[in-house]
Amino acid sequence: MQQSEALCPKFEFAFSILSRKWTGLIIQTLLPGPKRFREIADMIPNMSDRMLSERLKELEGEGIVMRTVYPDIPVRIEYALTEKGKSLESVMREVQKWAQQWVDC
Amino acid sequence: MQQSEALCPKFEFAFSILSRKWTGLIIQTLLPGPKRFREIADMIPNMSDRMLSERLKELEGEGIVMRTVYPDIPVRIEYALTEKGKSLESVMREVQKWAQQWVDC
Repeated sequence: MQQSEALCPKFEFAFSILSRKWTGLIIQTLLPGPKRFREIADMIPNMSDRMLSERLKELEGEGIVMRTVYPDIPVRIEYALTEKGKSLESVMREVQKWAQQWVDC
Repeated sequence: MQQSEALCPKFEFAFSILSRKWTGLIIQTLLPGPKRFREIADMIPNMSDRMLSERLKELEGEGIVMRTVYPDIPVRIEYALTEKGKSLESVMREVQKWAQQWVDC
């Protein structure tokens, strides 16, 4: 194998983030704008709240999602994509285009 | 939640294919052209042969990879992307662009 043909480790890492179950869908729900926990959960009915909570923490840790607490009464917590997260939009768009063309319902 | 905001099930299915460990990397190794089992394995050193064999069978079942047996002596078996598989190139490209910009080595 030639060195130039070796796979970039960054590519593998990016896939390891995006490959976790629900992560792609969670990011997609946040692309139009910040959302509260319940709004995200309602858009992905098959995912448990516990799983959503876990995934949001991971995405926060990776700098893809940002959690903001607003001091309203009752307190309001919103999840939003960071710049790193927003720049996943073109990845999402290409996955969606591919799915539309090739995946039968 | 408004109906129009619901997530397309095709999108979820596409992610369920692409989210399996190694699948993205295997597809990437096949983008430049058909390869033999050993060539793919050598390009992804951390993946076991058993895993590669399993993933290739799955990808064949999904119509993403095509297996061709050439009646040479000894027999030659090549794996290639189908049209459906090749059209994943733009997805791969966007993932790679994102990783280059945002993932530290």
